[in-house]
Amino acid sequence: MRAVDLIYAKRQGEALAPAAIEALIHACVKGTIPDYQLAAWLMAVFFRGLDERELSALTRAMMHSGEVFDLSAIPGVKADKHSTGGVGDKVSLILAPLAAACGLIVPMVAGRGLGHTGGTLDKLESIAGYNVQLNGAQLRRQLKKIGVAIVGQTDRFVPADKKLYALRDVTATVESIPLIAASIMSKKLAEGCEALLLDIKVGNGAFMKDLASARLLGRTMIGIGRALGRKVAALITDMNQPTGQAIGNANEVAESIAALQGRWPEDLKEITLALTARLLILAGQAKDEADAQGQMERAIASGAALDKFRALVEAQGGDPRLIDHPERLPLAPKEAVIAAPRAGTLAALDTRAIGVAAAILGAGRATRDAPIDPGVGVWLKARLGERVERGQPIFTVRYRKPGLWDQARPMLEGAITIGDKPGRKRKLILERLDD
Amino acid sequence: MRAVDLIYAKRQGEALAPAAIEALIHACVKGTIPDYQLAAWLMAVFFRGLDERELSALTRAMMHSGEVFDLSAIPGVKADKHSTGGVGDKVSLILAPLAAACGLIVPMVAGRGLGHTGGTLDKLESIAGYNVQLNGAQLRRQLKKIGVAIVGQTDRFVPADKKLYALRDVTATVESIPLIAASIMSKKLAEGCEALLLDIKVGNGAFMKDLASARLLGRTMIGIGRALGRKVAALITDMNQPTGQAIGNANEVAESIAALQGRWPEDLKEITLALTARLLILAGQAKDEADAQGQMERAIASGAALDKFRALVEAQGGDPRLIDHPERLPLAPKEAVIAAPRAGTLAALDTRAIGVAAAILGAGRATRDAPIDPGVGVWLKARLGERVERGQPIFTVRYRKPGLWDQARPMLEGAITIGDKPGRKRKLILERLDD
Repeated sequence: MRAVDLIYAKRQGEALAPAAIEALIHACVKGTIPDYQLAAWLMAVFFRGLDERELSALTRAMMHSGEVFDLSAIPGVKADKHSTGGVGDKVSLILAPLAAACGLIVPMVAGRGLGHTGGTLDKLESIAGYNVQLNGAQLRRQLKKIGVAIVGQTDRFVPADKKLYALRDVTATVESIPLIAASIMSKKLAEGCEALLLDIKVGNGAFMKDLASARLLGRTMIGIGRALGRKVAALITDMNQPTGQAIGNANEVAESIAALQGRWPEDLKEITLALTARLLILAGQAKDEADAQGQMERAIASGAALDKFRALVEAQGGDPRLIDHPERLPLAPKEAVIAAPRAGTLAALDTRAIGVAAAILGAGRATRDAPIDPGVGVWLKARLGERVERGQPIFTVRYRKPGLWDQARPMLEGAITIGDKPGRKRKLILERLDD
Repeated sequence: MRAVDLIYAKRQGEALAPAAIEALIHACVKGTIPDYQLAAWLMAVFFRGLDERELSALTRAMMHSGEVFDLSAIPGVKADKHSTGGVGDKVSLILAPLAAACGLIVPMVAGRGLGHTGGTLDKLESIAGYNVQLNGAQLRRQLKKIGVAIVGQTDRFVPADKKLYALRDVTATVESIPLIAASIMSKKLAEGCEALLLDIKVGNGAFMKDLASARLLGRTMIGIGRALGRKVAALITDMNQPTGQAIGNANEVAESIAALQGRWPEDLKEITLALTARLLILAGQAKDEADAQGQMERAIASGAALDKFRALVEAQGGDPRLIDHPERLPLAPKEAVIAAPRAGTLAALDTRAIGVAAAILGAGRATRDAPIDPGVGVWLKARLGERVERGQPIFTVRYRKPGLWDQARPMLEGAITIGDKPGRKRKLILERLDD
């Protein structure tokens, strides 16, 4: 079948046969289909969607377009968590060692910051020496030894996704639920994990703006997991304010280390423990919620979770002394405070703007290859619904370049809405989607 | 504005500003926008359409992407007819000299055969020496002298359409009413014609399969004409059987010469005179239908129309002796007949299949640069609704290569449906759309 016929069929709303989708992805990776035909097909998919059979064929073809990690020789259940991205979302840094301390094998392939959201790899690289590039053999060795790895994609990992994502980015076809789902799932399945928990963020700091889209994305990914024989479940969580206090890179690592020692902000604790517990149960490592809570408490209280993080850092070449001396992590020299302009209730935060402000200071990238400044960051000192007094700090900031601070400052100021109605505690876990 | 933002806006159903569309077409011709972004935009247009303002901006930008003929120095009203394409449609060969004989200036830029449909240029090239490539100065000289020209596009004529059409062809975005309308209108307006009559064919031998699509296409093109200050009207005509008897190239020229001498099949006469009359009235050359009919009758009876055709052929380098001796036009050596398999009424003809059969014999092209065999052709010897006897010829055929005839024969046989109900005369002019 010619590519133009596949585009035509999708344009007309027909479902493509799995073999046709495989051929398309094969041609995409080989470079034998021109980008303009892929672009037209992607836009037709945006409008027409993909049915379950097409979606599992697409995910499978993408997953097998490059290297697939074979972790079968490693005893234990291979499990991972994926977040759709938020501001201050350092859950992976805590969940991975915590779940490994509870006995799971966690082969986490993480990403870089994108737009206003931070990236787990960027955060880990604030630890001097931490190497995110392991090959398959190194990964297997490390997982066998310590049960956890947090690494980046290699060039040989799901190349179809790299190609398609780059094309979607420039053809306005990013926001397609089936394409997002196939992109995430192909990478997670190529990691070799058997159980996958999705953290789907919803709110003004997330890519999904409403519960219905989040639910659809979750259901779609769970469907792919089912079709491909993996256990997948999801929590839909609130992203109408940053998670925890720290937004940046080194400061998020410091907050994660404190969390692994049992010193964490209430919201970060609630969300991290909920996600880790779901993953432990999904993977069969805990028999129920109480069992999971007990395992996690013990792992933190005993220092096993923090030890696992230390082992992870050491195994990947990072300086483990920073874990006991987080004050040695990079910290930008200049300080600033954004205070509440009046007394009242902290009624809303423009979470996206906070993420953009941190990125402008140097915590994120303007272009794909720009460097990160690990020591800059923002700390959120009040939470939604709290009573604040005039002049009370809402944000504290560390920055390096005054020119950048001049740009970021009005964004942070504009991100605060003070209201008069008394606030109430926000729900953080909005919905649970099971396999 | 970045191209990706324009694609995004169109994907979301927003209308683009005229300046944005101009920038897009400019970048398309300059090659500064990648094909994959154009392809994504075309597919978004397929799904979202274009509003009137976008459409006139697009048509204007395409029209001005290359050479625009300036015919203002030539006295008289510049007028043309455009058909959306059919089988046996030789109306242009008759209408152009006939309208010129009635006093209009006809700067016709015609096309090649496409798929199952014939092309006016291919037909004219059965006349030895006929040159379809005139530059702007040559065209103006010829129009000044004889009032009519039938030429092909030069490379400098509406290059945006060439680029976009080639891309639409391989990205399954051909069948979009606004894109079809902009493509046709940009070329017709770049010709410099002030009055344009559209012949929108509907039926099993046409690109438009139903009246609703034909009406939408007609209304869309009339809207563009109004926005750009040209007189545009349309007739919607039946294409459920070939027009006239001859389907091919040289045989269509011969039938056209006979028609200009007043010897023509009833349906070809009805449709050609209806179109020419509408054009004469639209251009202000005739004050009403009766006036137009009178002018056309006189032009044919006096030999003025045929003389105009002779002048046209001579001006463009063709051998004018062929006009008085059409038996010298190319004619393939082998003859065949397809007869009615049983007695009854000729209930249906698969017009597309007839066109494909003629193309297979050599009257059309398999690929863009394949040569035409001008001497092969099919003649339709009975019309829809007629009573036919078993063994009565439905088609006569001239062919050159037995291997091709073996392929074409079953298509022609399969194109015939004989029924039992008595037939009735079909309406040829289905609807009239006015400015």
